[in-house]
Amino acid sequence: MNINAADSRQIAWRVIHAALKAVDPALAVKNYFDTHPQITTQIATTPGRIIVVGGGKAGAPMAAAVSEIFGNKIAAGQVIVKYGHTGHSTPSSSKIKITEAAHPVPDQAGFIAAQEIAHLLSQTNQNDTVLCLISGGCSALLTLPAEGPLPAGSLNLADLQATNETLLAAGSTINQVNTIRKHLSAIKGGQLAQMAAPANVHTLILSDVVGDPLDVIGSGPTVPDPTTFADARSIVEQYGLQDTLPKRATQRLQAGVAGNLPDTPKPGNPVFERVTNPVIGSNRLAAQAAVKSAQAAGFEAYLLTTFIEGEAREVGRVMAGLAKELACGEGQIRRPACLVAGGETTVTLRGDGKGGRNQEMALSAAIALKGWSNILIVCLGTDGTDGPTDAAGAFADGTTIRRAEALGLDAVKFLNRNDAYNFFTALNDLIITGPTNTNVNDLTLIMAW
Amino acid sequence: MNINAADSRQIAWRVIHAALKAVDPALAVKNYFDTHPQITTQIATTPGRIIVVGGGKAGAPMAAAVSEIFGNKIAAGQVIVKYGHTGHSTPSSSKIKITEAAHPVPDQAGFIAAQEIAHLLSQTNQNDTVLCLISGGCSALLTLPAEGPLPAGSLNLADLQATNETLLAAGSTINQVNTIRKHLSAIKGGQLAQMAAPANVHTLILSDVVGDPLDVIGSGPTVPDPTTFADARSIVEQYGLQDTLPKRATQRLQAGVAGNLPDTPKPGNPVFERVTNPVIGSNRLAAQAAVKSAQAAGFEAYLLTTFIEGEAREVGRVMAGLAKELACGEGQIRRPACLVAGGETTVTLRGDGKGGRNQEMALSAAIALKGWSNILIVCLGTDGTDGPTDAAGAFADGTTIRRAEALGLDAVKFLNRNDAYNFFTALNDLIITGPTNTNVNDLTLIMAW
Repeated sequence: MNINAADSRQIAWRVIHAALKAVDPALAVKNYFDTHPQITTQIATTPGRIIVVGGGKAGAPMAAAVSEIFGNKIAAGQVIVKYGHTGHSTPSSSKIKITEAAHPVPDQAGFIAAQEIAHLLSQTNQNDTVLCLISGGCSALLTLPAEGPLPAGSLNLADLQATNETLLAAGSTINQVNTIRKHLSAIKGGQLAQMAAPANVHTLILSDVVGDPLDVIGSGPTVPDPTTFADARSIVEQYGLQDTLPKRATQRLQAGVAGNLPDTPKPGNPVFERVTNPVIGSNRLAAQAAVKSAQAAGFEAYLLTTFIEGEAREVGRVMAGLAKELACGEGQIRRPACLVAGGETTVTLRGDGKGGRNQEMALSAAIALKGWSNILIVCLGTDGTDGPTDAAGAFADGTTIRRAEALGLDAVKFLNRNDAYNFFTALNDLIITGPTNTNVNDLTLIMAW
Repeated sequence: MNINAADSRQIAWRVIHAALKAVDPALAVKNYFDTHPQITTQIATTPGRIIVVGGGKAGAPMAAAVSEIFGNKIAAGQVIVKYGHTGHSTPSSSKIKITEAAHPVPDQAGFIAAQEIAHLLSQTNQNDTVLCLISGGCSALLTLPAEGPLPAGSLNLADLQATNETLLAAGSTINQVNTIRKHLSAIKGGQLAQMAAPANVHTLILSDVVGDPLDVIGSGPTVPDPTTFADARSIVEQYGLQDTLPKRATQRLQAGVAGNLPDTPKPGNPVFERVTNPVIGSNRLAAQAAVKSAQAAGFEAYLLTTFIEGEAREVGRVMAGLAKELACGEGQIRRPACLVAGGETTVTLRGDGKGGRNQEMALSAAIALKGWSNILIVCLGTDGTDGPTDAAGAFADGTTIRRAEALGLDAVKFLNRNDAYNFFTALNDLIITGPTNTNVNDLTLIMAW
């Protein structure tokens, strides 16, 4: 099979579209119920009501799909989405209320909607089914401070906001932030499942976390929480934040450690016996669709990993190293060949340029690929917006640097000031998909022919 | 097939030994002639003499192997090795002189031996065969300043040393350094082949450069040089070193650009018609042997790449990401599985600890692998000495961090001060092979079961 650079771009676009389609929120919901007819029937014929709750940027199309499938059987619903993410796809007949709220810092609108969710769930019985829709951004959108009087009063939204900012400024990891969040929340860390009991709970998860850890995605509202008040307290001590966090936050953690408050529900808790947490869309699903699409185009294709993490520019060099071996054609994998890698890199800012982690990775790969004639590397974010730009990512190949030099552009300088967006704009090598309304992290295609 | 952590270590050791054996210098020479009987017969029955020359750390065992194969047919020889690398394996009857010299900064001993090589080659005729033995370190060991009067006198060894240091201090790339080196040398960049003409030349190459670029390995003494005096001159200008480099160096480059000196021989030059440059040992050869050994142990194994480059700690995270996908066992590659990656990473020093790039990569991988029970990552340098340590590398697995914590060791702190050697010493997880007398860069094994 003879392939040239122009073909490779065309095929790459086909692969990109296939991958994004596989994780389109509405299609993912429909596909889940299509492939699980027993569950669908069970829900559709439940003697009780269906209640739909949830949070996340893809909440509107997920809710629309659920409405389409279960129609009048849905008695009520409240799903919280980010401002501007309501979409136009929810049937007006739907009883699911879509509320817009702030992300990443929660606001009053989200707080009120979360109270409504708590209220809806407080009225369920064992014949009811709760469908919980989780997607990227859920942790901030679905925010409800833990109740209960403390010496300094009741926790409020401002306490949670301040706690968040203090923890991030102190350099704590996202897992540590989540451990504390769960123990200051009334809804995270399995507590939404507690509210929904004794109803059946089906949580449909569109995963935006590398490796799909259920207790981490959206802070796991219907998943057993392996962390404890003691864990939360020791993180506070590790960073010496006893006197920096809001007083009501530290008081709650203290009361929890002292055994005066119930901890989040743990693995083995009977509340989870009627809960399922299927991942209906994930990086792996998108990557698998990419592999199939590349195979259909005649490529020998493999899913390399969905666990890519690390500094974008260094990961880009590794991706280039993988591409070069394929391009040599001396190995076990025959050309045309395509490796698909997923995950999410990070960028340590050094300059004041414009870009995103995928564009930065592509620029670094392009520098390493200079002169290789039979390689294309494609880096993109599945949400369609890589960093603060209107691009999803960029294409890198062996001609990138030569074409840049012809325009008088020094790729290394662009990389050093984190300015990949302007670099690839000049070359017309940005990947523009527009917002996709989904987010299952990033994909890299490594193609050689 | 059931495999546990202890099995995986044992299998890893078997794979390591198989990989190192495949690139043992003497075995690689023997294997080359065994698998190329026509060439062997041609050389052995040449009506003329065999002259053996060369440079590199593996020169002694390579010369011993050649002596064993061609015996008395060898009329004379001069091979330059690093101090301490003579070994005990050269038959006393051999007519190949082994000279020890300084590396990485060339010295008088190497200079005199290189003059002897030039003298030997000046006496060859078309019936003779020159065997040239190239291995890691050749570029420094095989050093001969270009002859010819310049306004400031003739180039000398000190000029070359000062040029080297000035270029490296200015931040030039190794390719740029080599371009200038070749144009100040009488022997690099194809010029050894010119000296040897009209004899047949077989250069046996043990490659220590990622990707095996023939014109780069040992500065390509018998390979057409694609770079020109003009290239060399523009590098000097790029870094503004016109007045910093030794006067005789800049005078020579000027004279060359002006057309007053012959450039190095270029591709298509008839001198290369009687020259072959087989790579007899390389990272790919070692990696392929590792793959075969892992397959023999029941693993589904693939050669991932031989082009790994990048910051060691970031590459380690990527390797961990590849391992996690294998460990999930949901992909196309079945467990037990092994991916083999080769190349050479770099370390940006941040602290004053002890370590090497492979140990640093392993430590970073271990941090990312915390809690994964069915993964082993093995990082080692094929020369057996990773950085300024007596270890070749280290093992990283899902228990590494737990075991370190039990000893009160904070892995992140060790990594941040580049102290992987002391970290892995405490855990008894160093890979100690002793010096292997070969160097084909580094290998990483990614195993999951």
